[in-house]
Formats: sequence, C-alpha cells, structure tokens
Amino acid sequence: MPLPRRWLTSLLLRAEGSNLLIDCGEGTQIALKEKGWSPKPIDAICFTHYHADHISGLPGMLLSMANAEREKTLHIFGPRGLQRVVDGLCVITPELPFDILCHEFHEPRESIEFPPFFVEAFRVQHGILCYGYRVSIRRLGRFNAERARELDIPLRFWNKLQHGESISDGAKQYTPDMVMGEARKGLSVVYCTDTRPVPVISEMAEGADLFICEGMYGEEGKEENARKYKHMTMREAAQIGRKAKPAEMWFTHYSPSEMNPEIYKEEIGKIFPVKFPRDGWSRDLLFKGE
Amino acid sequence: MPLPRRWLTSLLLRAEGSNLLIDCGEGTQIALKEKGWSPKPIDAICFTHYHADHISGLPGMLLSMANAEREKTLHIFGPRGLQRVVDGLCVITPELPFDILCHEFHEPRESIEFPPFFVEAFRVQHGILCYGYRVSIRRLGRFNAERARELDIPLRFWNKLQHGESISDGAKQYTPDMVMGEARKGLSVVYCTDTRPVPVISEMAEGADLFICEGMYGEEGKEENARKYKHMTMREAAQIGRKAKPAEMWFTHYSPSEMNPEIYKEEIGKIFPVKFPRDGWSRDLLFKGE
Repeated sequence: MPLPRRWLTSLLLRAEGSNLLIDCGEGTQIALKEKGWSPKPIDAICFTHYHADHISGLPGMLLSMANAEREKTLHIFGPRGLQRVVDGLCVITPELPFDILCHEFHEPRESIEFPPFFVEAFRVQHGILCYGYRVSIRRLGRFNAERARELDIPLRFWNKLQHGESISDGAKQYTPDMVMGEARKGLSVVYCTDTRPVPVISEMAEGADLFICEGMYGEEGKEENARKYKHMTMREAAQIGRKAKPAEMWFTHYSPSEMNPEIYKEEIGKIFPVKFPRDGWSRDLLFKGE
Repeated sequence: MPLPRRWLTSLLLRAEGSNLLIDCGEGTQIALKEKGWSPKPIDAICFTHYHADHISGLPGMLLSMANAEREKTLHIFGPRGLQRVVDGLCVITPELPFDILCHEFHEPRESIEFPPFFVEAFRVQHGILCYGYRVSIRRLGRFNAERARELDIPLRFWNKLQHGESISDGAKQYTPDMVMGEARKGLSVVYCTDTRPVPVISEMAEGADLFICEGMYGEEGKEENARKYKHMTMREAAQIGRKAKPAEMWFTHYSPSEMNPEIYKEEIGKIFPVKFPRDGWSRDLLFKGE
C-alpha cells in the first residue's frame, strides 16, 4: 500500500544514457520527479508481476511520457499475460504518440539483450506468476595497443575493434579477439521482491554489486504471514544475502505495518549487513580496477 | 500531472456517515490518508471523465478497500463507457471481496438518489465525454407540533412523519404534509473540471454553497491553450462564478505550469472572490437557520 511519504517499490537503472525501470506502482512517476528525474527517457519497463502495487502507476507514467512529447518506442517486459494487462490499463491512455512493445516471459529463466543492459529474468514463488531480475552491464577486456602495432593494424580501425566490430580491409581481416584482452568484471544489480525464499534467488544474487531484496516483515511472529502471502521475513532475506555474498544488500518493500523498519537493523546485521533504504535512495556503481 | 506535494484533483463529500468520492487520480488514496481519512467507507465514486489523471488511482483504491476487509458493494457512476474502463483497470485487481456496480450516464442531464446525497450530473464540453456534478443534501420542512396535537396524531407516529413516512392507523391516515412545513434550503456543492465554459455550468452552480471549478490557466496568453485542450482560464471560470453567485467558490486542477496559482488571486478577485485551495483543503457546510 502506498503511504504518505513512502512510495511503492520501484527501481530505475541508468547507464550510458539508457534507462530501465523495474516495477511502476501508483505514484512512481511522482517519486521519480521528487528525485529530479523524468519519465520521458525511460527506454524499458520490467515488471516482476501484476499485483497493483507494482503496476498501477503505468497509465500515469505513459501519459507523462506523452505530455513530454516522447516519440520513441517503449519496451515492456514481464511474465505471461503482459499484453492483456497493458491493454486493460491502457483503456485510459488512448492515442499515445509512441509505440509500446510487450515482451512476455514464458520460461523459468529468460535473458534479454537490451544494450547497455543484459537482463536476466528468473521465476520466483509468489501468489501469482512473478520474476526477479539480474541486470548486468558487461565490460570488455582491455585493448592491447602493443599487439595492435605488432600486427600492423591501421590506427583508424582501433576504435571499431575496441567496440567489438570485425573489419575487412582488402584481403586483410581484423577481429576484436586479436587485440582485446579477456572480458573484465562488469556490474550487476539484482532485484527481487514478492517471493518466498527459493534457491534461484541466492544463485542469481551471487557476487552482485547490489542485491535489492524484499524485507517485508521484521516483527517476530510474522513468519506465518510471510508463508501465507508468499513473502519473506527480513531474516529469511538476510539468509539469502549470507549465502549469495553480494557486495551490498538493500531491503525494500516493507510491510505497511513496519513503520520503522530500521529497528531490526542490528539484529539482521548478525546474519548479513543489510542496508535499510528509504524513498529516493540511489547508488553509483563504477567498474572496479583498470 | 501529479507533482511532488500536489495531488491530482479529487473531492470527498461526507454527510450523515455516507461518503461520496468524485474522481480518483493516481495517488488519491495517499492524499486521503494524509488527510487522516480512509478509503474503506467510501460508498460511491463518481467520475467526471476517463482521462487518466481522474481515474488512474481506482485500482489502488479498490485494493486498499480490499485490504481493509471491505465487503459492502461499491457504486461507481460515470459517463458512457464506464463498465469497459472499470473492467480494463480491474485486470490488476482480481478477486475483490466486494461487488462493484457501475451506473453509466447516457443523457446530457441525469440525477441519482443516493441518500443522503442527491446527485445531478450534467454534461460539459471537454476533449472526451465529461460531466460536472451538483451534489445536494436536502432538508425537510419544520415539524409543526402544534398542528400534530390539533389533529390528534398519536405521539408514537411523530418521528415517522418527520422522516417522510405515511401511516395507516386503523381507518385513520396520517401523511407528512399534514404536519411538515415547506422543505427548507438544503446544501449543495458543485464540482466542475475539464471543460470549456458552457452555459450549463453557471446554471447548475447558481446559489451553490460551494462551487469548485477548474482554474487551469492563470498566465496571460494561455487562452488559446484553454480552447485547444478544452479547459478554462481562471478568468473564464471566475466569470461563471460572477454569474452563478455561489456562496463560496474554489479553484482546482491547476496546470502543472502554474506553480504558484495564488499570484492571480487579486486580479481574479476583481471578477469574483475565488479561493485558491491547496492539497487537503476541507470545509464544513452546515444547514443555515432553524
């Protein structure tokens, strides 16, 4: 439930001028504006599932994009049923000045190349069909200039080879593997909410730079609610963190009954050092090493 | 567009324990909670039209009602097409624990008895089919106890007669008109937004206790925008006020470009003394005189 001063759970990923939004509940467009960001440049929206608190902000978001005179196609990704849900919600947004392309997941695991993002969706266990996301930014290997000189590759081809292109120059063929080192460690963010703690989550969150996971219930005695409504307690989520060892872990999607989720921080910290974000938190992630 | 600290336009009318909401844009349920009120007891929702800023908050509102374990039927009123719009939006709210009854308007003017409210809907002129509302609370005439004694009406029937019931007591018939004076002036609120200034508005707003009208554009030079998007300038709206002479007039539905609508207050006041409410304003209206 959206509350005064607590927006619904949503995440915007921004890299190399591209923007990917995960989930869009009621008010997400306002949260975005509070942060000083705009709906217009969002290239794609990924939905975890179709409970209203994760998707009810879609029509308003689409209209704000339209008001900003967006023309480029919007891509929407989500579990089976996406087209029907989007069509339903769009009865109140006729005549958008841009196209919407829906891509539905049918397999337990699917991946999408959406440059610069590599998106992996993995099915989790909620009351309805629900997916978690691992979004990665890959990092190429280092360019070996010495080797390029040795091979007499003309300088004008270096940039193309660095960006993965192969080149034919008369009889000569130049390919990136001739001059590029092994791919370096990129970045990955894992986002997972509205699920019981299933093994796939720790597998996908392993070694992530940032793992954002629901921390629905902190209060003792809510274990049964967590099972009944297919959510997690903070303790269950922290156990996943302990197993997956992400560089950083954040909770999200607090129950409306948890007005001060931070009170569990110390106790949860004994399992894994989880951060307890509030609205508007953001984090810059940078490639590590040369 | 919803903005940080400026919710979309919506009005809740409360009388004699009944609650009637007009319009429900994105975030209306949060605005309601900020005010300290609850979605649960809302008996009916009236929509002016189906642009997203007036209806996109419906699915979230329905779910909050469901979370509060509402069981009583919700009545929804609105222009032709209501059922299709509600069905579309409700793809994300399956299994509500209460019924929804949709009532569509087909005539330029329709009225509904929804005690204690008497609701008159009147068609206005917007880009799509749109209605304004006049909601009244009627007030019966005064009970004439002296006359009741003269007519030998048993005391046990007085209360029923006061509440409009007729009574048969053996051969005797007692009817309210025998003991009730003429109906006294009740209360009425008129709500009208998203329209060009058409004559029906001043007709309906005449003598209202509170007339709430869009004040979309204050800035000079926006007259053309007002005509193009089928809205009103504050000056056009104030002219309606001058003609209709409501006891009190409020503006609402400011353009997102009007960050400080109050700057036009003095100038508009020369046409009619309009108030410039901000989020969360409310007003108690009481019957006047004995």
